[in-house]
Amino acid sequence: MSTDEVADKMSATNIADEANKQGTVEGGKPHKKPEKKEKERKDQKMAAKSKPASNPQQAKNKASEPQLIGITCKKSEDLAEWYQQVILKGEMLEFTDVPGCYVYLPGSYKIWEFIQVFFNERIQKMKVKNCYFPLFITEANLQREKDHIEGFAAEVAWVTEGGKNKLEKKLAVRPTSETAMYSYYSKKIRSHRDLPLKLNQWNNVVRWEFKHPMPFIRSREFLWQEGHTAHLTEQEAGKEVLEILDHYAAIYEDLLAVPVVKGKKTANEQFPGAHYTTTIEGFIPAVGRGIQAATSHCLGQHFANMFDITVEDPNQEVKEGEARNKLKVWQNSWGFTTRSIGVMILTHGDDKGLVIPPRVADVQVVLMPVGVTAKTTLDTKEKLYNEVDELRRSLEDANVRVECDYREGYSPGYKFNDWEMKGVPLRLEFGPKDSANGVVTTSRRDQAEGKARGTIQVSEIATEVPKLLETIQADMFKKASDEYASRRKLVREWKDFVPTLNAKNVVVVPHCTGGPCEDEIKKDSSGQQEGQEVDARAPSMGAKSLCIPAAQPEELAQGTKCVNPKCGQEAKMWVMFGRSY
Amino acid sequence: MSTDEVADKMSATNIADEANKQGTVEGGKPHKKPEKKEKERKDQKMAAKSKPASNPQQAKNKASEPQLIGITCKKSEDLAEWYQQVILKGEMLEFTDVPGCYVYLPGSYKIWEFIQVFFNERIQKMKVKNCYFPLFITEANLQREKDHIEGFAAEVAWVTEGGKNKLEKKLAVRPTSETAMYSYYSKKIRSHRDLPLKLNQWNNVVRWEFKHPMPFIRSREFLWQEGHTAHLTEQEAGKEVLEILDHYAAIYEDLLAVPVVKGKKTANEQFPGAHYTTTIEGFIPAVGRGIQAATSHCLGQHFANMFDITVEDPNQEVKEGEARNKLKVWQNSWGFTTRSIGVMILTHGDDKGLVIPPRVADVQVVLMPVGVTAKTTLDTKEKLYNEVDELRRSLEDANVRVECDYREGYSPGYKFNDWEMKGVPLRLEFGPKDSANGVVTTSRRDQAEGKARGTIQVSEIATEVPKLLETIQADMFKKASDEYASRRKLVREWKDFVPTLNAKNVVVVPHCTGGPCEDEIKKDSSGQQEGQEVDARAPSMGAKSLCIPAAQPEELAQGTKCVNPKCGQEAKMWVMFGRSY
Repeated sequence: MSTDEVADKMSATNIADEANKQGTVEGGKPHKKPEKKEKERKDQKMAAKSKPASNPQQAKNKASEPQLIGITCKKSEDLAEWYQQVILKGEMLEFTDVPGCYVYLPGSYKIWEFIQVFFNERIQKMKVKNCYFPLFITEANLQREKDHIEGFAAEVAWVTEGGKNKLEKKLAVRPTSETAMYSYYSKKIRSHRDLPLKLNQWNNVVRWEFKHPMPFIRSREFLWQEGHTAHLTEQEAGKEVLEILDHYAAIYEDLLAVPVVKGKKTANEQFPGAHYTTTIEGFIPAVGRGIQAATSHCLGQHFANMFDITVEDPNQEVKEGEARNKLKVWQNSWGFTTRSIGVMILTHGDDKGLVIPPRVADVQVVLMPVGVTAKTTLDTKEKLYNEVDELRRSLEDANVRVECDYREGYSPGYKFNDWEMKGVPLRLEFGPKDSANGVVTTSRRDQAEGKARGTIQVSEIATEVPKLLETIQADMFKKASDEYASRRKLVREWKDFVPTLNAKNVVVVPHCTGGPCEDEIKKDSSGQQEGQEVDARAPSMGAKSLCIPAAQPEELAQGTKCVNPKCGQEAKMWVMFGRSY
Repeated sequence: MSTDEVADKMSATNIADEANKQGTVEGGKPHKKPEKKEKERKDQKMAAKSKPASNPQQAKNKASEPQLIGITCKKSEDLAEWYQQVILKGEMLEFTDVPGCYVYLPGSYKIWEFIQVFFNERIQKMKVKNCYFPLFITEANLQREKDHIEGFAAEVAWVTEGGKNKLEKKLAVRPTSETAMYSYYSKKIRSHRDLPLKLNQWNNVVRWEFKHPMPFIRSREFLWQEGHTAHLTEQEAGKEVLEILDHYAAIYEDLLAVPVVKGKKTANEQFPGAHYTTTIEGFIPAVGRGIQAATSHCLGQHFANMFDITVEDPNQEVKEGEARNKLKVWQNSWGFTTRSIGVMILTHGDDKGLVIPPRVADVQVVLMPVGVTAKTTLDTKEKLYNEVDELRRSLEDANVRVECDYREGYSPGYKFNDWEMKGVPLRLEFGPKDSANGVVTTSRRDQAEGKARGTIQVSEIATEVPKLLETIQADMFKKASDEYASRRKLVREWKDFVPTLNAKNVVVVPHCTGGPCEDEIKKDSSGQQEGQEVDARAPSMGAKSLCIPAAQPEELAQGTKCVNPKCGQEAKMWVMFGRSY
């Protein structure tokens, strides 16, 4: 079976499988030159155009008002369909004819740029420097660390042809750059004076996975940053691992308004070739599944060993003629990916579409003249528009990212829905009545109807709007955070394990932290358990360990057993388990 | 012959072939686990460590002062060797075991980031939005524009395996993204209201070239931005093409202090699939060769045709029931690459190493305490260091990017050479005498010995240093610009054509702009011409048309013939020809 057939097979059960939905399965069918008819049929099937259609039928009937087709299903009823509609109609992402590879449209790419600025500023303070290493890695180089290659072998894409010729030796498209970078580290690091060495790159990586692809969440190509550092001591390396984890958590919590749990991976789940892996774990309430949000690894001395990255011990007392001992360096690597954008969308989006947190919204405020009808005089309209323009300038001067919607021929309802679908956090409306009262009407995207609306004095717009945006940001985080907290259940006994998962929670359990025991738990928590009622839409996958939370819920009582009754070992830590992406 | 063998063969004559120099040729030899001995031998061969070596011999003799091995050859005598030493010792770039693929170290990557900020700001004002399209393009998609695929077929790298499986259909690693993006354009652009559509992406592309690779200048993978826009009218598209060209020229001239000539490509040299190509052309005085600096293309309606990107004519007067005409959109694409960094290095570097223009220097000023000897009291030293630190703060407050060099155990000479090799534009020295006189001693990197040094009052440092940096920037540009102008020769007759090229100039000649005539000129200007004395180091390549300069030197007299005597056609334009990279 070819890889693509495998992918297609597997994606048949996928919760958001674009290949099937778009009919662009790569299988055995010859690629046809697209014909206009077929294209139109496909587009109609996709339904999701947020712009007014301009097909011939409509063109004939010019008076018809543009219709906006919003999100046509509920998040709580069909998350997969909802997610696909939201990212397409919200103009975050587009599918391509390469399954598992997606277009990051300006809507999502801008969020990535905000993340870049935020993170660059923090790592520059840590004296990390940005750089760029090649996309291609030789097979010999990739194989130099055994655990590492074993972890990645199944998902490496290989280039075997250049132009019309076969390459003598095939080249891996980087799945990550440890092996690409550490030959350089070996050469560059000649003395303890060259330490620490701290490099970071923002790039694209490819992991030719055959699990279900899902936009942002699991794709064959994704964007990320990967930091790689070398230190003289384990202690120094360990300190940095946690500093980076804090920055990652800050991106999620302070920028994306998404709560995460900090912790350490169990041996089963750590990065191939790592000494240990720290992680932040997110949660998707709609399905009750955990999701790995970002990881920061201490690689220990494994790669230093294989790549011969050593320095002479600067602290050794040496006698005349005595050589200094060689020390292997301590290395870290840490990565943060575009998956984060998917987590953000899944966390905040609602039945109307996207909800973007203000700090990462390209458009924070949409400002709209309203109340202009066929009976409004041109003078009144001109005056109103000039006032709107003045409001815009005030907001821009206050560093608010604002866009005015002056579009003609669209009803206010259309425009409201359009901006709501795109997730703009705050709408300001300004009509003749508002003008007379010296106020603007506000409408918060994150609040339910009835609680969303308010007014701000025109004279206070430059201070009150930024304040309101920060309130929205904080409220979005609080809501998500409360939800996650309420779904993280302390479970002490196995009998409660699966039912608690089935009720869309993750569980924190006493555990031995052993690998075989984890495998057993995964098996025993999968599928429909006897005597349990299972939500038909709940994934039948088993639960895996998500992390050992840094903040342990309570001290383990002496003699507490592992939650797995088949295990019998003593519990070592509280470990968070869950079904997961 | 395999592609790698071809590459190796060709690179044997290469002016800066890393594969040969490093002995990392990819040929048939099995990859060995690197042994320390072999590694050390190799590193010694490379010689070029700018850091003090810490091999066992030296460790024994701890008192020995670190020796800096500077650039060991002259730019004017062996440009290839000089270039390689300068980029390695200046820590701009590193070679890898994949021929033609390089590491962009922080020294060069930082310049790329300055370019990104500068260009992003300008295109954002033009309402261009950043995004990201996939690395992989299906073969079917790549082939949809005939001229385009013909232009790139020979240099596409193909992925044929994923994990351990063969892919059903191989995937191209993008050489450029026209075909990857325009399926989306076809879907997105439904009405004239969707125009203009202006997207840009910063990414990596691969062109598996078999010409000589040369770091920055011609590599198999490079970084760039590629802008792709669609417009309703040719006029609007054409206006943007030139706006972008102006921005590209500004990156070179205002940031990199490198002069360029704006113009249009002849039909022979335009982008595959373009309607027309505008270009900025640089010049490398050391070899007298032109170099394409960046291009901005109007693609016309070629891709709109193949990808069916049409809108209904909004300006057509339609009668009841009449359908509107379909208009094909007008498209542009424009790209700017990391090649620019190589041009900058080749332009400004000198026998001591890199010279970085202040506006793109990560470290603009290195500040150094001097005059501290074994006889200096600790009090005096501490006072001096505190004063240096205060100077640093003043400079940082004035937004000067400054680094202090407090390294112990290195002579001032070592430090001076080290920073000079890295191209830091301005050195400030501050010793006890300077302190007593209330001045800092300045030393400009861009000026020859004897003219480089001056002083600035400590009290004026926050205004005078930024001013001096701007003077350095302006002087670097003027020097390069004067040089280029003096080497751009107006040539009216064929007899002067080759001798003028051989004297390391480019020529501006009356030309018919015909393709076959250009081919003839290339042939007739290659190799050693009879009766001509040729510089042994001059490339024996023929001259090609570089551009039709936008600023024509003078009006062509009625009846002027093409410079090629075999052609006989009337000259249409002054065309710049040259040997080129």
